[in-house]
Amino acid sequence: MGVSAPGSRVGHEDWLVRRFFRHPVRIVPIGFLVAILLGTGALMLPPATEEHRYTPFVTALFTATSAISVTGMVVVDTPAYWTPFGLVMITVLTQVGGLGILTGGTLVILVVARQLGLRTRLLVQAETAEFGIGDVRRLLLRIGLTMLVCEAVITTILTIRFVVSYGYSPGRALWHGFFHAVQAFNNGGFSLYPDNLVGFAHDGWVTLPLAFGSIIGALGFPALFEATRSWRRPGRWTISTKLTVWGSLVLLAGAFVVLLAVEWGNPRTLGPVGWEGKALAAFTQDAFIRTGGFNTLDITTLEEASYPLLIALMFIGGGSASTAGGIKVATFFLLAFAIWAELRGEPDVTIGHRRAATASQRQAITVALLSVALVVAGTVTLILLTEGVGYDRALFEVTSAFSTTGLSTGVAPTLPPAGQLTLIVLMYIGRVGTLTLGSAIALNTRRRLYRYPEEQPIVG
Amino acid sequence: MGVSAPGSRVGHEDWLVRRFFRHPVRIVPIGFLVAILLGTGALMLPPATEEHRYTPFVTALFTATSAISVTGMVVVDTPAYWTPFGLVMITVLTQVGGLGILTGGTLVILVVARQLGLRTRLLVQAETAEFGIGDVRRLLLRIGLTMLVCEAVITTILTIRFVVSYGYSPGRALWHGFFHAVQAFNNGGFSLYPDNLVGFAHDGWVTLPLAFGSIIGALGFPALFEATRSWRRPGRWTISTKLTVWGSLVLLAGAFVVLLAVEWGNPRTLGPVGWEGKALAAFTQDAFIRTGGFNTLDITTLEEASYPLLIALMFIGGGSASTAGGIKVATFFLLAFAIWAELRGEPDVTIGHRRAATASQRQAITVALLSVALVVAGTVTLILLTEGVGYDRALFEVTSAFSTTGLSTGVAPTLPPAGQLTLIVLMYIGRVGTLTLGSAIALNTRRRLYRYPEEQPIVG
Ligand SMILES: [K+]
Ligand SMILES: [K+]
Repeated sequence: MGVSAPGSRVGHEDWLVRRFFRHPVRIVPIGFLVAILLGTGALMLPPATEEHRYTPFVTALFTATSAISVTGMVVVDTPAYWTPFGLVMITVLTQVGGLGILTGGTLVILVVARQLGLRTRLLVQAETAEFGIGDVRRLLLRIGLTMLVCEAVITTILTIRFVVSYGYSPGRALWHGFFHAVQAFNNGGFSLYPDNLVGFAHDGWVTLPLAFGSIIGALGFPALFEATRSWRRPGRWTISTKLTVWGSLVLLAGAFVVLLAVEWGNPRTLGPVGWEGKALAAFTQDAFIRTGGFNTLDITTLEEASYPLLIALMFIGGGSASTAGGIKVATFFLLAFAIWAELRGEPDVTIGHRRAATASQRQAITVALLSVALVVAGTVTLILLTEGVGYDRALFEVTSAFSTTGLSTGVAPTLPPAGQLTLIVLMYIGRVGTLTLGSAIALNTRRRLYRYPEEQPIVG
Repeated sequence: MGVSAPGSRVGHEDWLVRRFFRHPVRIVPIGFLVAILLGTGALMLPPATEEHRYTPFVTALFTATSAISVTGMVVVDTPAYWTPFGLVMITVLTQVGGLGILTGGTLVILVVARQLGLRTRLLVQAETAEFGIGDVRRLLLRIGLTMLVCEAVITTILTIRFVVSYGYSPGRALWHGFFHAVQAFNNGGFSLYPDNLVGFAHDGWVTLPLAFGSIIGALGFPALFEATRSWRRPGRWTISTKLTVWGSLVLLAGAFVVLLAVEWGNPRTLGPVGWEGKALAAFTQDAFIRTGGFNTLDITTLEEASYPLLIALMFIGGGSASTAGGIKVATFFLLAFAIWAELRGEPDVTIGHRRAATASQRQAITVALLSVALVVAGTVTLILLTEGVGYDRALFEVTSAFSTTGLSTGVAPTLPPAGQLTLIVLMYIGRVGTLTLGSAIALNTRRRLYRYPEEQPIVG
């Protein structure tokens, strides 16, 4: 620890930033842990609950972790259990968690890029690996501003809609609009309604702003920044941005078609409504799977074939350094390109006239396969700690927690404390784990003084 | 096609072998397809069924594919439905399928090794990539002999046991012994008992020879040959053999412990018996998961936590060029070593003082991830084609079919023809797909005349 140079004259803020740059891989996990503990303490206070008594530790810990990791999975009915004070706490925790992962993730990428001497286009100098602390401050400011503008726009549209069409008082409309806007951009998933957004499934004025807020938040700042700044020249985007932007569109479109087709005739979801209603509900639910966590369809009444789709999409998640979770879109599509190259016998993995480094491919495999192992281990643990949960439901809840999606088949509230603790650990690892792991292994490379003779084992 | 040199004077057998060496990746899939169609035709004949009428096409196709791909999954009750003629056909098909994959797989490995100039230790010259047709014939003979000896030993032990302890007539005992011996070594999984081997779960004289036969068959000839010939110097084995032998032991031991722990108190499986009975039943079931397909425990009454374990083990499968299926033990552990190297920041993947080629790692990833994609696609297809099958059961049956394991939660017989066809396709792809894919991508490498500039995208 104690690394600040003796007699240094930098200010407190600069000192923090410098410290971060020395230990990026430590600061993010520790920061989230501290925030979770503070949040748990606040949520345990009697004024936070409608019953005005101390909330059980595990319930408060679950809710705080769920909010800060922007998962949105719940063990109590949000509007019935928490007072306005509790709900404000949840909003603050979600905002802190979302801002934390956006800035922390972006800074980690900058640090990794600088250490490896990679070019990044996140800062003004754009094409160089060199940057000063002033640049970093401007970058953080820009992230905060983007968040505020997005949330303000969504809040405004929702507030007007709630007043005009639902007859809410202006104050109530503003509160409901603001609460859900924060949840949407941060991919939080908490809602002020017991059925989440199912009641608004056919009101595009409410669900579409939330869906687009969720999509923008799930893109991540590096991709969002480069894509909006160089939108005229998508051919010149970095591989990360190409994979994230085009990959997100492919996943959105593909999942929309599949979800629509599978649920088309389901009498408990899309069946009863016309094609516009089907399209709207399928699109918004599609947007919230990766990994916003709101639901416009009742997750417990989906067709069986939809669950593997949802599990796969939650597992893949959103953009790097975004408010979304999962192994990340860029990781998934980098592996897809690597497999495609292998099938064609190409020695290089080429993505839009650029060659993806072998190191990145190995990192992608490591992140993906360790995540698979974690989800399998989490599923088995959850089943062992819980009587009577089928492994299908366990797999769904565990994937949802790990990917910080928060969609639920209703199992979470029924779990014993040990089962809820399993999901808490998964939310925490899912939030900070992939980012920390990805950057740690990117920074950690040894040189060998000698190499062993090579052998080519046959596989398959 | 038509590649035999004009005026060549090689005999018919040599011509076949030469032909194989030109198109190894084509001959195996086509050979299996032809055998399946012939087997289907034979099983459709009235003398094959107890009811003496034509078996429906899909039922016969399913059974023939299940036998030839050595899966052992059934859609009818084997002893009740088929006559001795039908059962002999199933035995022949299993034997042909097992011998086909042992020899075909071994030859494919030889061809790949020769094309790539790799050393192999399968032949007498051992340390060179050069070999003649006489060597190949000796190799095939040795494979056949190993198979015969194994099956003869198992048949003998079982026959004696059936006569002495169960009072079978000598003829019946020999038939039952031989039938199950063939199924065991070939990892077939068909049984002459309606409850498979559950009735013998506590008779080690019956189940242990079958378990060891299954383990030997699942090791594969390349690993078996090298391990037995150089058993004094395991340090000098090739990477493939090391991964397969030690990996199989690790999986066997690990799964034994987990299965025993999870099922210890289950009143419908291990609960009622003493610790020796628990250990025996858990060990034999453990051996048959990868991917023998017999069951000494009732698969439908396992604890929920056992299913993810079984699915993972079936998916990993056995040794390369063995009668077992799955992505193969060597593929799985090569990926594990690659991840371990990545986490430690090592640029090389080192396994016992040898460096695994990057090409092998890429092949392993391709085989593993395409298999995941196939299982997910198969699961969704099966659910869509079938009313009322939960995705947990669908995932189990699909993994079992793809890995040619044949364990079942009882879903297969209840499926409509379209669902059974899905499993048929999965058994076929599972049997010939991973081998063909692995060797095809090993042989197919292009050289690039130019390379694009490198970029290192951040993942995770
Ligand atoms: K979420
Ligand atoms: K089998």
